[in-house]
Parts: sequence; C-alpha cells; structure tokens
Amino acid sequence: MNAMQSLRERMAELADLAAVEMLAVWDQLVMMPADGAPARALALGALARVSHDRATAPEIGDWLDALDPAALGEVDADIVRLARRDWERARRVPDELAVELARASADGQASWQRARAEDDFAAFAPALERNVGLAREYAACVAERAETSYDALLADYDFGLSTGELRRLFGELAGELAPLVEGARAHSPRRTLDVPVEAQRAAVAGTLRRLGVDQTSWRVDVSAHPFTSWLGPRDSRVTTRYGDGDVEALLSSLHEYGHALYERQIDPALDRTNLGRGTSMSIHESQSKLWENHVARSPAFAEVLAAELGAGGCAVTAAELHASLVGVEPSLIRVSADPLTYPLHIVVRFELELAMIEGELAVVDLPDAWRERMRAVLRVEVPSDRLGCLQDVHWGAGSFGYFPSYALGCLIAAQLWEAIVADVGPLDEALRCGELGELQRWLGERVHRHGRRLDTLELLEQATGGGLEVAPFLRYVAPLAGR
Amino acid sequence: MNAMQSLRERMAELADLAAVEMLAVWDQLVMMPADGAPARALALGALARVSHDRATAPEIGDWLDALDPAALGEVDADIVRLARRDWERARRVPDELAVELARASADGQASWQRARAEDDFAAFAPALERNVGLAREYAACVAERAETSYDALLADYDFGLSTGELRRLFGELAGELAPLVEGARAHSPRRTLDVPVEAQRAAVAGTLRRLGVDQTSWRVDVSAHPFTSWLGPRDSRVTTRYGDGDVEALLSSLHEYGHALYERQIDPALDRTNLGRGTSMSIHESQSKLWENHVARSPAFAEVLAAELGAGGCAVTAAELHASLVGVEPSLIRVSADPLTYPLHIVVRFELELAMIEGELAVVDLPDAWRERMRAVLRVEVPSDRLGCLQDVHWGAGSFGYFPSYALGCLIAAQLWEAIVADVGPLDEALRCGELGELQRWLGERVHRHGRRLDTLELLEQATGGGLEVAPFLRYVAPLAGR
Repeated sequence: MNAMQSLRERMAELADLAAVEMLAVWDQLVMMPADGAPARALALGALARVSHDRATAPEIGDWLDALDPAALGEVDADIVRLARRDWERARRVPDELAVELARASADGQASWQRARAEDDFAAFAPALERNVGLAREYAACVAERAETSYDALLADYDFGLSTGELRRLFGELAGELAPLVEGARAHSPRRTLDVPVEAQRAAVAGTLRRLGVDQTSWRVDVSAHPFTSWLGPRDSRVTTRYGDGDVEALLSSLHEYGHALYERQIDPALDRTNLGRGTSMSIHESQSKLWENHVARSPAFAEVLAAELGAGGCAVTAAELHASLVGVEPSLIRVSADPLTYPLHIVVRFELELAMIEGELAVVDLPDAWRERMRAVLRVEVPSDRLGCLQDVHWGAGSFGYFPSYALGCLIAAQLWEAIVADVGPLDEALRCGELGELQRWLGERVHRHGRRLDTLELLEQATGGGLEVAPFLRYVAPLAGR
Repeated sequence: MNAMQSLRERMAELADLAAVEMLAVWDQLVMMPADGAPARALALGALARVSHDRATAPEIGDWLDALDPAALGEVDADIVRLARRDWERARRVPDELAVELARASADGQASWQRARAEDDFAAFAPALERNVGLAREYAACVAERAETSYDALLADYDFGLSTGELRRLFGELAGELAPLVEGARAHSPRRTLDVPVEAQRAAVAGTLRRLGVDQTSWRVDVSAHPFTSWLGPRDSRVTTRYGDGDVEALLSSLHEYGHALYERQIDPALDRTNLGRGTSMSIHESQSKLWENHVARSPAFAEVLAAELGAGGCAVTAAELHASLVGVEPSLIRVSADPLTYPLHIVVRFELELAMIEGELAVVDLPDAWRERMRAVLRVEVPSDRLGCLQDVHWGAGSFGYFPSYALGCLIAAQLWEAIVADVGPLDEALRCGELGELQRWLGERVHRHGRRLDTLELLEQATGGGLEVAPFLRYVAPLAGR
C-alpha cells in the first residue's frame, strides 16, 4: 500500500469513528434511558481517546512526508493539505493537556448545570476559571506565529478568521443594528400565536416532507435542545421540540434542516475523507440560518407553513403567522431572540470571552460585565445570572471562539441569499409554492459540495464574490424596522 | 502505572468500545433509516478493527508476563487468567485471516438473504463453501492440543464444552424426546388465540413493569427479530415484535428479559473488566429460556399474562392462554417451534454443521441431508430450502458451533429451575402473583453475579451441584405429553 492509500484509509477510519461518536451522542440526547448516562460518558471517552490516538499517530507524519502534493490529483492534494494541518495542530497538544481539557469540559458542564439551576455564579466560577486557564494554555500550544490566543482558539471553529476582523465586523454590526431596534419594536411587535402541539407536529412533518425529508434516509425526533446529526450520506437526523402555544418548532426544524442539507450535499467523492464534512462553524450556521431566516421567516413561505398548520387542524393566516415569526423585542435569552437582535447577543458574548482570554476580564467580574454590556448593547436589565451569563453551556464546556459563528452565520446567510437572488432571480414564487429545488441545487453547487476543500473566506469569495459583510444582513432586517 | 492498572485500563476501554458497538447494532436494527445501512456497515467495520487492534496489542502480553497471579487478589487473578486466554487465542489468528473472516461473514449474509428470498440454495452454496473453509482454517489456528476443529469453534461460544459431550447429550435428548412427540400432539395440541396487537402491547408493557422494567434504565422497542442489548449496567434494551393474532410477543419479551437481567445482575465490581459480561452463549440462553419456558409458559404465570391482556382489553382465560403457549406440533421453522420439539431443530443443525466442519458432508449435499434429518428427527417433510436449510442466518454469517447453545440453554434452564425449587420451594404462588423477586435474587446470586469468572460447566456445578443433564428438561416437557 502506498502512502496515499494508507493516508486515505486512516482518514476513512477517522470519519467512520466520528460517525459512531455522533450516533452515541444522538442516542444519548434522544433515546437513552436517563440512568444510562454514566456508562455513555465512559463510552464516549473511550471513543474520543481511540480517535485521538489514531489521528495523532506518528505514521501519519511519515505518509505526509512521503507524498509530493504536486504529483497528486486535486482532491488528493487537498486531503494531504488538510491532513497536515490537522495532524500538526493536534500533535502540538501534549497528551496530558488533551486529557485535562476533556476532563475540565465534562466537570465544567456538570458544574454549570448545577450553578444555573441554583442561580449561583460563585459555584461555577472555579470551573470557569479552570476552563479559561486551560484554553489559554491550549492556545499557546497551537498558535501559529503572530496569532493571538483568541485567534488560535477561533481556528478550531473557523480556520482563517482573525480576531481583528471580528472586532471590526461586530463593531459595525452593533453600531448599525442598535438604532434599528426601537423602530422594529414598533413596526414588528412581538406577537404570540396559540398553536396546539399536534398541529405544530403535523406542520413540521408536512413542511420537511416538501423539502425532501423522506422516511428512508432521514429521522425527525424530539429532544430538549434541537440539533442535527449526520451518520452517513443517507442517514440524516434532525430534532426539534414543541412548546405549547409557540411556533418555535417551525423555525428550529427548518434551521436543523439547513445543517443536515449541507452535509448531505457534499460531493460523494469526498465521503470518508478528511474533506467530507462542513468546512466551518460559521458556514454551517449560515446554512441553518438561511433556512430559518430567509425561508421560514419570509412572508412568502409563511403561506406554506400556514397551509401545513391548517392541514394539521389549526387555522391561521399567513400574515399572522409571519408576524409571529419575525416580531422584534430585545430580550434576555439568546436562543429565543428575534432575528434582528439575535446577533447582538453574540456581540456581547464575543466581547466578554475575548476579554477573559486576553486576561482583561477576571472571571469573578463576569456577571457585572454581562449586565453592563447587555444594558449597553441590548438595553435590557439582567435580573439574575441564570438569565444572564449562566444561560449558555459553551463556557462551561470550555468552548471559547465558538460563539462568533452564530452571528457570522446570520451575516453569511444574508450574503448568500443576495447572491442567490442575483443569480437565479427572486425566489418569492418558489417560496410561496414550497418548491425549493432550485435553491437546494444552488446551495449544493456553490456551498455544499466543496466540503472542507475551501475554508470559510475562500468559500464565501467563490460563492458571493466578496468577503464578510454586514450590509446584506442589515438589508435583510431593515423591513422589520419599516425601512 | 503498574501492569495491573494498565491491563485493567485496556480491558475497560475494550468494554466501552463493545458497548458502543452494541449501540450501533441496536440502532441499526431499531432506529436507523434504511438507506443508512452502507455507512453503518463501514462504521461497524472500523470499530471492529480498532477493537481488534487494541485487544491483540503486544503490550498486553508484556503486562501479563509482568504479573504474578499468586500475588493478586481473586478478581485481579481472574482478570489476568481470562485476559491471557482471550489474548493468546486472538493472537493466533493472522490479521489477513481475521479480515477475510469478517468479509466472508458480511458477504455470506448478503448472499444468504438473496438466496433465501429466491429459494435458491445453489446461489448460496459458494458463500457457504467459503465460510466452511475459513472456519476450518480458523479452527486450525486456535485449536489447543487434542482439540478437533469443531471443539475449537465451540470454544468461542462455550469455553470448556467438547464435541464428544454434545454428541452424547444430543443423542440422548433426541432419543428421549422423539417418543414424546406423538403423545404431546394429542395431549397439548397447538391452538392459536386471536389477540389484537394493542392488547399484546399493553400486556408486554404491564408484565415487564411487574418485573422491574422501568423507564429510567430500560427501553422496550420493536424490531424484525427480537434481541437484547446491554449498553451499561443501567441501560438495558429489549425488543420484541407483534404479530396479528399470535402471542409470540409474550414469550419473546420474557425471553429477552432473561438475557437482559443476566447482564444487569453481574457483580458491579466486574463492570468494565473482561469479566463483566455473561460467561457463555449456553448460559445466556439458559437465562432467556428460563423466563420463556419456566415462567411465561407455566400455568401459574398464565394468570398474570391473562390479567395483563385483560387490562389491555382482550378477555382470555389463563387456561386458554397457557394452552396456546405450550401447544406441541412438529414444524419446519426453528424460531416458531414449540417448547418440546425446539431442541430437536438444534440437534439436526448440530449434526449437519459438525459433518460439514469435519468434511463428511459436502456443502452441495446439505439440502438433501437437511430433508433426511428433518424427516428422521422431527418427522416432517421439508418442501423447500427456504423452509429448510436456508431459514437461519448463522451459517451465512460463518457461525459454526453457535447452534448448540440454543438446546443447551433449554437443558440448563430446566436444571436451574429444579435447583431453584429444591432451594426455595415451589414457585407456583409467586408465579401466580407475578412477584418474582426471590427468583431474580436466586439467579443473581447463583448465576448472574459471577460474570465470566466461572465457565459454563463450573457455573453449572456451583449452581446445581451437577453437570449437563437431559433429565430435568425431559421432566419439564413430560406434562405436555400427559406424563
């Protein structure tokens, strides 16, 4: 077997093990009886250790050294390029640190869960302190020359983005969005609709069916927090949740569909290589946000959703439904924020985690800083840490540099949407009929099929002709403020 | 870390990976969308390869050599004893042969599936030929001195049993059972009950609930073929299936419950060691058969089952139900055979697979030999290979030496049942009330808790004071023949 074959075989094995890991997590969150948790944590640990061993094994370095990229085909050359990047990065982390990071992440999530339940930030502070310290230590190991710690952390989620670029982008975003909020509150007030759970279920099933979600290659289940798993090119699993009297399930199921469609439309030639998955968190989030913001929240697609709710026994007009899906009201909780203020929640988190990683904000001062920033950026008063800096799991899990992708996803989705419309013309009629094959194909061709062959900025450049921009998102939300 | 710690850590990892593999199979058979099959096969292959690598790694030999069993505690000494046995056995199989066996098993199952669907034995013969050849090659690698090929194959399922012992036992069994069949057909004729699926579902749920099957540490699902998975000490999953108008689900759910209870009651101190699972196929099958034959098919427990069916809206008397659960009629298909003739199906398979492995029966002659043996042993005419030698997957999967455990399970269950009654007195009253805590505890103490610390025959000796015997099973079936 030559070096390229050996390398491909190892990458296939790692992809297979990653699919098994995803299955184990899916089952944990969807099917597992509660008391199975301790055994599952151990099983996931074993799987992670084995995968890490195989991903960082010295023979990979030998294969890479033996290969001449210039003598390879395009795909093989990209396999080698990414394999070297991933392998070198992983090898820079000492085994003891990797183990300590995993342990701190598990402990931190448990600590966060207790602290949030009891609204007791002080109980969480030591775990957070440990996570911040370890993240800085990790960043010091993996940072390339000239990278800051936060740059190095970002690269795990979005290779090629820089802290400076995010500062600029999020500064502009906050500056432009804030003045729109008051107008949007008046022009698009938040309204709630009383839709029975059974009608929501029927509408979710019917809508997804229109988009190609069949029984033979998809599952749609319920979990506490919606998420997506891809266990193979034809084994896609999305989850949603149903609340009495809200219609979040309509948005979240389209959101998760966007993630799943991305993975399904990657070039089959990349399957079971290190290129055969979504390229970055921000591009992934752009795919979910595109279906959530630009499809599900469009006035035209509201006609489809209203018809599906009607078929499920709940009479609601498209206009009422659309109004309830886009109503703006600054609020405390990120995951239930409206489309306009959502990115502002991310701006706050970005500023604060950056300050913690750079050593400019002590963990003990986080709650006050959170209150201050929420007041400044969103103009809301935070009454408790449970509804404040304890609301998200990310920092408890030791994930720093992840939050930005949520806002970048909103921006990129808007950029892609304008590119699509420029390319194929207005989509209103297609949205109104729920016939979105052309949209699916455009995304497949311009975004999905590349897998990891293009990093975030290259992909964006090829798909839209430009770099990261705030303007398209501002144009998307302007009508909500009556502009 | 000393050698014992290293060994224990590796055994824990292998146990964790085995749990992941069991999950992947469970999901495949219960939850996976059909088109997920190719990716799942690859994922299972990767998992098997990684586990095999870790289980046969040379460092295990170093740890074993460094350990002095005499200086270890009892459990550690057993961990070392079994680790050496498993490791040496696995190391005797060349990697290429292991890969070839796995491939032939997958191919053979696919070939079998097609051949069975089309009732075309000739299409399956080449795959079976290959499997027989590979099994002989494998046996030659792993056989201990003085072991025949079939002895060596048996050891994978039931360590310590010999072909000679099985010949004697099954010869006696066939000789004693055959004369009972005619009497049983007259005394306990096969009857069918028309029980709606919904009532069956309710009765299965209600009955299992009485036995401690709760929502927090069990799952009960539906699959094409009933089976059991143990993903952790408190994550037990059984499946059953529901046919219109039969009550097989009542038997099969109790059968699978017996497998699950065995794994749940293993001493927690053995968890995540190489001792922390059922010791052999025959003991496992004795646990399922005990709940199927001696609980579910008892006249006393029929009162519980009838009450549960009644609660599910289907009125049936305990006597009617019991009669339908024990009716005897020689038939073609093993999995739906009655309790008396079931072991005769196994005797036929044992004789034929032994002859194939010993080179005394050519694959091409199997269909005729099958017809001849079914006529001689069960007195039935086999109208097609689909209802004959193509009915079971085992040979297609390359499993030779597995079938005997099904009959041994019947025999051992009857032996254990007599030992329980001798020990704690008649169980009729407990069966009638469905209060089987004492039975569960007895099994836990005498059978389950040992895990792999005792092999089949030692365990049987400790639990019953004797060796493998036919008489208790004959006493169990005698009443069916009115004796």
